[in-house]
Amino acid sequence: MKNRIVTISREFGSGGRTIGKQLADKLEIHCYDQELIVQLMKESGFAKEYIEEQGEYAPRGRFSNAFAGRGRDGLSNQDHLWIIQKNLIRELAEKESCVIVGRCADYILKEEADCLNVFIYASMEKRAQRIVEVYGDTEKSPETRLRDKDKRRAAYYQFYTEQKWGKVQNYDIALNSGVIGIEKCVDILSDLY
Amino acid sequence: MKNRIVTISREFGSGGRTIGKQLADKLEIHCYDQELIVQLMKESGFAKEYIEEQGEYAPRGRFSNAFAGRGRDGLSNQDHLWIIQKNLIRELAEKESCVIVGRCADYILKEEADCLNVFIYASMEKRAQRIVEVYGDTEKSPETRLRDKDKRRAAYYQFYTEQKWGKVQNYDIALNSGVIGIEKCVDILSDLY
Repeated sequence: MKNRIVTISREFGSGGRTIGKQLADKLEIHCYDQELIVQLMKESGFAKEYIEEQGEYAPRGRFSNAFAGRGRDGLSNQDHLWIIQKNLIRELAEKESCVIVGRCADYILKEEADCLNVFIYASMEKRAQRIVEVYGDTEKSPETRLRDKDKRRAAYYQFYTEQKWGKVQNYDIALNSGVIGIEKCVDILSDLY
Repeated sequence: MKNRIVTISREFGSGGRTIGKQLADKLEIHCYDQELIVQLMKESGFAKEYIEEQGEYAPRGRFSNAFAGRGRDGLSNQDHLWIIQKNLIRELAEKESCVIVGRCADYILKEEADCLNVFIYASMEKRAQRIVEVYGDTEKSPETRLRDKDKRRAAYYQFYTEQKWGKVQNYDIALNSGVIGIEKCVDILSDLY
């Protein structure tokens, strides 16, 4: 039987990763997120820290960075990561039913797998509250952290997929976790699955 | 007890109106859409045909239409309709729990009522199929009809609300009816309600 994949795209601080994990537990399948990063690392030979730092950054433009971190094949480190990540996500989808959080999995698997594509979001206020609870305070205000991170995810997604991140038409369902609550989001998705 | 309102915004051909009606039946509350238009008409004294034609058109710009259909107070017919509609929707929300389809109800009730704000959408392909099934063929291709109607709804919404129509962050949940199916959308929403 064909595997069934749930891809979760999410705004930072919306609890999308938590929803992915709880959903996977409930469905008794794997959830790939940090785990995916570690696997990526092993395959690629890149240092784990590098992947975590660079993994969701879009290349900065065609010229500004032209001589930094490029191999003989003219691809940047980020381009290499993208290719490795793409292959890895495709292998996972072929191997087993699973939940994949972030990493443009919705786009990568578009034509190839039986996917339920989910977008999780929440108001700025709810997300600010959550990141302070989960990650603690930092010097930057939570709103600035949210805007930075969202901007990066959007740029990364757009760079590699040429689609707009968070555009509802790219998903099957979009849930406001701040209104609906994490538990109920998990219920709705497991029921749909 | 405070009334609970479901507002449904929808792409043309996504089945949003059908979902609204079935949801209201299931919840044993009223659904306002055509009914709302008829009520609007009665209150406003405008001809029913006029309301149906103009009700979702945005004014065409500040000057192009400056002398057409304006009363002594300088408001266009569309502005009058908007004010009447706004008051009517507020009265409905105060009077009873109900489902309201379209008409910027999400925006109008934003600060005032306990709302579940829903957006229903589907792929161009699924919607084209649906409008031919429901409304039959016309000279225009279904894709052209969809684009025209969506453009009008977006312009109307943006003109009166200054928000972007279909931007997921304005809703609590967004459902792709083409993937999820109308019946399942009704189930999810009645469960959430």
